[in-house]
Amino acid sequence: MPETSKRGQIMPASPIRKLVPLANKAKERGVKVYQLNIGQPDLPTPQAGLDALKHIDRKVLEYSPSEGLRSLREKLADYYHRFNIDVDVDDIIVTTGGSEAVLFAFMACLDPGDEIIVPEPAYANYMAFAISAGAKIVTVPSSIDEGFALPPLEKFEALITPRTKGILICNPNNPTGYLYTMKEMLQIRDLVKKYDLFLFSDEVYREFCYTGAPYISAFHLPGVEQNVVLIDSVSKRYNECGIRIGAIITKHKELKQNVMKFCQARLSPPLLGQIVAEASIDAGADYMLMTYNEYVERRKFLIDGLNRIPGCYSPIPMGAFYTVVSLPVDDADRFCEWCLNDFEYEGATVFMAPASGFYTTPGMGKREVRMAYVLNKADLGHALKVLTEALRAYPGKTAEAPQ
Amino acid sequence: MPETSKRGQIMPASPIRKLVPLANKAKERGVKVYQLNIGQPDLPTPQAGLDALKHIDRKVLEYSPSEGLRSLREKLADYYHRFNIDVDVDDIIVTTGGSEAVLFAFMACLDPGDEIIVPEPAYANYMAFAISAGAKIVTVPSSIDEGFALPPLEKFEALITPRTKGILICNPNNPTGYLYTMKEMLQIRDLVKKYDLFLFSDEVYREFCYTGAPYISAFHLPGVEQNVVLIDSVSKRYNECGIRIGAIITKHKELKQNVMKFCQARLSPPLLGQIVAEASIDAGADYMLMTYNEYVERRKFLIDGLNRIPGCYSPIPMGAFYTVVSLPVDDADRFCEWCLNDFEYEGATVFMAPASGFYTTPGMGKREVRMAYVLNKADLGHALKVLTEALRAYPGKTAEAPQ
Repeated sequence: MPETSKRGQIMPASPIRKLVPLANKAKERGVKVYQLNIGQPDLPTPQAGLDALKHIDRKVLEYSPSEGLRSLREKLADYYHRFNIDVDVDDIIVTTGGSEAVLFAFMACLDPGDEIIVPEPAYANYMAFAISAGAKIVTVPSSIDEGFALPPLEKFEALITPRTKGILICNPNNPTGYLYTMKEMLQIRDLVKKYDLFLFSDEVYREFCYTGAPYISAFHLPGVEQNVVLIDSVSKRYNECGIRIGAIITKHKELKQNVMKFCQARLSPPLLGQIVAEASIDAGADYMLMTYNEYVERRKFLIDGLNRIPGCYSPIPMGAFYTVVSLPVDDADRFCEWCLNDFEYEGATVFMAPASGFYTTPGMGKREVRMAYVLNKADLGHALKVLTEALRAYPGKTAEAPQ
Repeated sequence: MPETSKRGQIMPASPIRKLVPLANKAKERGVKVYQLNIGQPDLPTPQAGLDALKHIDRKVLEYSPSEGLRSLREKLADYYHRFNIDVDVDDIIVTTGGSEAVLFAFMACLDPGDEIIVPEPAYANYMAFAISAGAKIVTVPSSIDEGFALPPLEKFEALITPRTKGILICNPNNPTGYLYTMKEMLQIRDLVKKYDLFLFSDEVYREFCYTGAPYISAFHLPGVEQNVVLIDSVSKRYNECGIRIGAIITKHKELKQNVMKFCQARLSPPLLGQIVAEASIDAGADYMLMTYNEYVERRKFLIDGLNRIPGCYSPIPMGAFYTVVSLPVDDADRFCEWCLNDFEYEGATVFMAPASGFYTTPGMGKREVRMAYVLNKADLGHALKVLTEALRAYPGKTAEAPQ
């Protein structure tokens, strides 16, 4: 039997999805599983998007252009202009979800052995895509005690080597919900400029900022317009994750050409998803406000509830729909598995993503989990109750205050 | 401005799509462009697939499982059983088009520097995906004079090094239309077994075999069940290329686990495409027969027509819907560009894929193009007329017989 690649062997299993088989087994046993592990909102897809499907009058569902439908790219340009992001249609390339945008950004910017610096905890799949590209993610730990603010810039600078090609930020942040301030963004800008690095900026959650503090796009930063590689997702924004539509936006001409070669190799992003995405962008302010208000409520409800559980601590997330929570347990990986395998309360259990998979520094996040507040308040309430009981019953609970 | 990756720089532009900007310019000038460059059939998507879209009653277009919807995988298993391919639901992983199946197969099997041997001409994007994975494609030239039959096995064996990890075949073949015989497949099997290699087998066009000779799947070969990595496309089969649904099929347990990590990183294949694909598999024998008969007619019409043009030669393709044609020109790349830039006949021109991009051996395919017979007979007739006139007018035509 031939041996598989070392790359495949060292690829981390997704911390978000690796416990799915255990969750499925729990469901087979008849246990209700509250899914806090994944950013799969239960909110409705815009009706305009669903209607667009019903009104398709094509006889052939053909390939789209490799860079995406022009009409969608035009709508996206208008959308970005509303956020004072000064990009042109030709700066926008449609991808198969934000996932492909990250993969192609790495493939087109990084060679094997190249390094990018990322504050951790960080979205776990960045690591997976970096391994796919043979590149190395170097992390700067941020701390739950400081609400996951940007670590001091000296810590980034200390990690710069001749192989450093970029800095990656996610703003608002997945998994922490942190929103970078203008001061922090300008610090990043200075570093990017000083070392002429790429600035990979994942801004998928820009619509979801809750504290009144402004969302700062990497494209708002003067002087690094050619360095910014903006990662976006349309499907995530409009509660239609399954349509798999994202975008990669850059003004760097050679980079655009390189990305297009990867796009041409995979021929076309999904046609149907593009049709739904285009209609969804017109969903209107009411729809976005409904979604936004719902997250505001859920966020308050979940975070308040978590911080009332003895030994639990969650900073108050400022954006996105995730939070990283410290739990009074010996090992959050073990605890999450235990919840699915060995525990139920009133016929239910909780499915959380162990935070260890969002760190590369060994031992970090050992007592943390990521939760997505993508369930309605009633379900979140039940989930909090189940979590409280699980923490009471778990054999590996710790009395000490969480770190 | 930061420098892009060498990987991106050496990535070949797709020979199928790189001339699209020239074609678009021709269209802007009002020229009718006959698109023979790309395997985008004009035949209708099955009505059952289109209807499935209209009947979607979901309120949320959510992620599917990373491995694809179970109901689709079950239908696919049944489908393969009809071809005596003995695979289980759990051997099937749904991908975003056949493209992603190739990428993930390479990522999960090959490390940077690893080699796979491929008869050429070969589907150009194999090269692109190999470069993405840092792997090396080593080619064995097949010859138009021998109808692109499998080159002698000694030529493969001579290229085997300690880094050789696999052999890749496409059967029926894109771009040549060649259909490998049982004798040839057993020769490949023997080599795969002797050196314990992966056998990547792209069998996207299995429904389209025209000569009565049987389609031999790599899974029909005894003794290499663990070595076979079957690449498939659902969207291509049912004239719905834009839905982006393919599959990777393997019985190699560790490989399945590795592929799943790449699948989890990109979260989910397109949900809507899976819904259409599932309905399309039920399109029925009538639909497939209609498609099949249409290609039989077009194939005969195109190949006869090509072989009547002075200096042109096309072998008779046995399967798929492509052929590689030798033209009486100095340089097919230049000729294809010239057709789009500088030529029209009665307001029309032809868009062909230069074959040089399907070879890695320098100089090979210099006078060849790939044509896809995905247009109706009337259009193919016009395209043949335009090609005839283009060959008369082209400044770089050659009198000599093509090689």
